[in-house]
Amino acid sequence: MQKNLIENLSKIIAKLPGMGPRIAKRIVLHLANNKEKTLLPLIENLQALHDKIHNCEICGNLDEGKICAICANNGRDNSVICVIEEVADLWAIERAENYHGKYHVLGGNLSAISGKTIEDLNLENLYLRLKEGNTKEVIIATSATIDGQTTAHFLAENLKEFSVKTTRLAHGIPVGSELDYLDEGTISIAFKTRSEF
Amino acid sequence: MQKNLIENLSKIIAKLPGMGPRIAKRIVLHLANNKEKTLLPLIENLQALHDKIHNCEICGNLDEGKICAICANNGRDNSVICVIEEVADLWAIERAENYHGKYHVLGGNLSAISGKTIEDLNLENLYLRLKEGNTKEVIIATSATIDGQTTAHFLAENLKEFSVKTTRLAHGIPVGSELDYLDEGTISIAFKTRSEF
Repeated sequence: MQKNLIENLSKIIAKLPGMGPRIAKRIVLHLANNKEKTLLPLIENLQALHDKIHNCEICGNLDEGKICAICANNGRDNSVICVIEEVADLWAIERAENYHGKYHVLGGNLSAISGKTIEDLNLENLYLRLKEGNTKEVIIATSATIDGQTTAHFLAENLKEFSVKTTRLAHGIPVGSELDYLDEGTISIAFKTRSEF
Repeated sequence: MQKNLIENLSKIIAKLPGMGPRIAKRIVLHLANNKEKTLLPLIENLQALHDKIHNCEICGNLDEGKICAICANNGRDNSVICVIEEVADLWAIERAENYHGKYHVLGGNLSAISGKTIEDLNLENLYLRLKEGNTKEVIIATSATIDGQTTAHFLAENLKEFSVKTTRLAHGIPVGSELDYLDEGTISIAFKTRSEF
């Protein structure tokens, strides 16, 4: 009896990103011991996530309503679109509080290993936005992995048919890091793209 | 808008055991992207945990119904009670498939740091069970930490008024471990309690 319910829940939690069977059981136990304080608010918020949070019809960001707060914000620069892989990347860029344009979430990258192809990416919507003609620059900010860079090159190639400037983020030494701990690829590219004081 | 709902949920998840803000956001994102496959089953199972799983009235174990499957199982030895701190300890002992008596879950240990006192432990129920007179042995299996051992000594002292044998688990070298990596306390106690071949 006990096994089924608790085991089922543990299995679901164990499959979440970064989780495992042991930590899942600890969490289930914690929830069972804190029903009012933790379990109920968790259920309510998960239900709200399910009911209210959707992908923005324009950019693919996650938010309440059909259009996300960033797309709906007229204060943001409508002429720049930053193309990213996941909503997590959007959050990371927003944390930097440095970029004030719009976004476009691809929903992944072209990956031979996970079998993601062009059809799996949120590309049609991006092309539609570009056809509207308001966009002057597309910043391709896919990750600096092989798959991310493959996606970036594919995208840059496809964007040639639109009259937009296509840019990508700079590679180099991360702020605050020591050279000693950096990989050769990053050091090489930082040398190649060095700038004058 | 987005901030509130997603931030709230992230905060609740971040406070679960072993979690942090980054992994919480990754999990929220994963759930938002897998509503049917992961989020809905998770909500359903959490709701079931809330509605159906309770502490057993006899031993404090977590299970469906008023009496847990172990207490209700007449095939298990009713004359031995293994006293443990948490339900997780019960699961660990059950995994070993070696013990066939009953359990008693204290719900913690006497801890000066976390301010847990005698009143916070599930002791009254244990004394009631012992007064019934069916119990021949109480195995005190609290953890081998200072708090766990304090609890064990307190309990051993209190159980003297009942006519039961009080035992504790052996200390020693864990199976499969190398001496080189073990602390001095464990090695000392393993020497003191060595046995003949």
